[in-house]
Amino acid sequence: MKVLLTDFPWPDTTIEHSICATAGHELIAGPSAVSSAANIEALVAEHQPHAIMCCWAPVTATAIEVPPDLRVVARLGVGLDNIAVDAATARGAWVTNVPDYGVEEVSDHVIALLLAHWRGIVHFDAEVKAGRWEPATARLTRTRDMTIGIIGYGRIGSLTARKLATGFRTRVLVNSPSLLREQRVGDEVAPGQFVATIEQIQTQADVITLHLPLTSDSKHMVDDAFLRSCRRKPLLINVSRGGLVDNDALVRALEAGVLSGAALDVVEGEPVPPLALTSRSDVIFTPHIAFSSAASLIELRTRCTEDVMRILRGERPLHPCNLPAEHE
Amino acid sequence: MKVLLTDFPWPDTTIEHSICATAGHELIAGPSAVSSAANIEALVAEHQPHAIMCCWAPVTATAIEVPPDLRVVARLGVGLDNIAVDAATARGAWVTNVPDYGVEEVSDHVIALLLAHWRGIVHFDAEVKAGRWEPATARLTRTRDMTIGIIGYGRIGSLTARKLATGFRTRVLVNSPSLLREQRVGDEVAPGQFVATIEQIQTQADVITLHLPLTSDSKHMVDDAFLRSCRRKPLLINVSRGGLVDNDALVRALEAGVLSGAALDVVEGEPVPPLALTSRSDVIFTPHIAFSSAASLIELRTRCTEDVMRILRGERPLHPCNLPAEHE
Repeated sequence: MKVLLTDFPWPDTTIEHSICATAGHELIAGPSAVSSAANIEALVAEHQPHAIMCCWAPVTATAIEVPPDLRVVARLGVGLDNIAVDAATARGAWVTNVPDYGVEEVSDHVIALLLAHWRGIVHFDAEVKAGRWEPATARLTRTRDMTIGIIGYGRIGSLTARKLATGFRTRVLVNSPSLLREQRVGDEVAPGQFVATIEQIQTQADVITLHLPLTSDSKHMVDDAFLRSCRRKPLLINVSRGGLVDNDALVRALEAGVLSGAALDVVEGEPVPPLALTSRSDVIFTPHIAFSSAASLIELRTRCTEDVMRILRGERPLHPCNLPAEHE
Repeated sequence: MKVLLTDFPWPDTTIEHSICATAGHELIAGPSAVSSAANIEALVAEHQPHAIMCCWAPVTATAIEVPPDLRVVARLGVGLDNIAVDAATARGAWVTNVPDYGVEEVSDHVIALLLAHWRGIVHFDAEVKAGRWEPATARLTRTRDMTIGIIGYGRIGSLTARKLATGFRTRVLVNSPSLLREQRVGDEVAPGQFVATIEQIQTQADVITLHLPLTSDSKHMVDDAFLRSCRRKPLLINVSRGGLVDNDALVRALEAGVLSGAALDVVEGEPVPPLALTSRSDVIFTPHIAFSSAASLIELRTRCTEDVMRILRGERPLHPCNLPAEHE
């Protein structure tokens, strides 16, 4: 059977190839970079795959409806915002992901970005390399004295909270719909981690970091109204999905001094982030690599491909994200 | 009485001025930047101070012997390597420091540098801002899988160890003369922190960070022989004193691929670091700011100046670093 890999942000496809070959299936790799919905639809029409594996490329309802015997759309990652899940469910195809990989990496990355901003690492490295050794210009902040607001409290949000609260003994405010349902505001759900409303995070936090999926509800949740209510010139960190933040509102907030900066591993418009953000010295960028490490990539690629092999053998996947009609 | 401030890596001297004025003393501020031993000696000869406060400027035996009624040389910081302590002791002047400020900041800074290197923050920020969004080029590492070697286990070394071991659950090897005297190699002195020899750190560590004073014994402790014994291509972090590292040996080790990089807040030759290091993309620099934060600067400057006031009133200082002949 044919497995189509739509995109892969790593150097080669040896892991995916070798697992498919061992199981007697053919891996067809598209371009490494993300291509357009139309290109993915054309690739699918050309190869008529039994399985589609995708990282960030859009897998539309059109792409999903074309192949006569599609069994699975497998996400090399956690979020499903680039996959037409309902279309897959309707035609009886599984959707899978790898829900619990890269958690250490993303939470490390959040703290790397937080410290890079508040300790001036990117700015001062450039200064020294330009021949300026000027410690008197430093305006730095002690991590322990901050309040960190974490919006979204799944695996990544809660591990980030734990690293900051236990390692740095920073006060951490945590928020999610299920926390607000199951706990009282102000409850200490883990040492140093307190349940808070969005409003409390806006008024009390020196850092706000987003750890929630992109859905129609969460799209542009950080907009003009959200940013206008921030009181302590926080740093905004986004390692989740670019679409959570309205870029134009972010530029306006930075211009107005409502934020002290932003640190973005994801941004609406990637892989071509808006110049209005990349031209700013108060924004630190990385190119959607928070999940990445040598170890996490091997785990992600292996586990995703093996779940596809399971489905092609007629077994249930380990990580189903839907319940296709014919498997109910 | 007169208080001479030889140098100050912060924007103004309002704190020092106001504490001196309240006590009825005159503060004379030299240049903000560090000047030469000869310049400091000339400043001292011109003003004949009763107290000298210094950050990094060299306060030589000559400078100390000149004023007829010198009572104290006060270090705005921890280390004493820029002060001729014996000359002060011999003539009956106190030497003071502020031993326990900036501990949070320096340990934050170490972790900021560690994560900036292993998460590629400086490199990828520059890449994105140059128009390249290339996640497939990422070669990143999970903090939890590393072994961190900490040489020197005073306030800063031990807090750095605690943040990494409890926050990131990283294996931490700790080394100091007193640890080796009082514990057995392999003992777990705190959760996740194990006593190790220098040789074990050289062979097992992915990060080596220095937290010890600069003395004639420790000068150039990181030399060709030290680096040649490193086995896991570690990152070398120095936030202590530039003189601990032989710059030429460091360049050779980077060229040879013995290290995966260096992160330096201090460097021999500062404020003019060698071009052979500042021209390298595998070295991250900050300009001796690890100790700095809004809070730590206020604490440092206030406590140092107040200890000087105590001595000028005829009292013992809170933080003596010597026992001058006449106070025994």
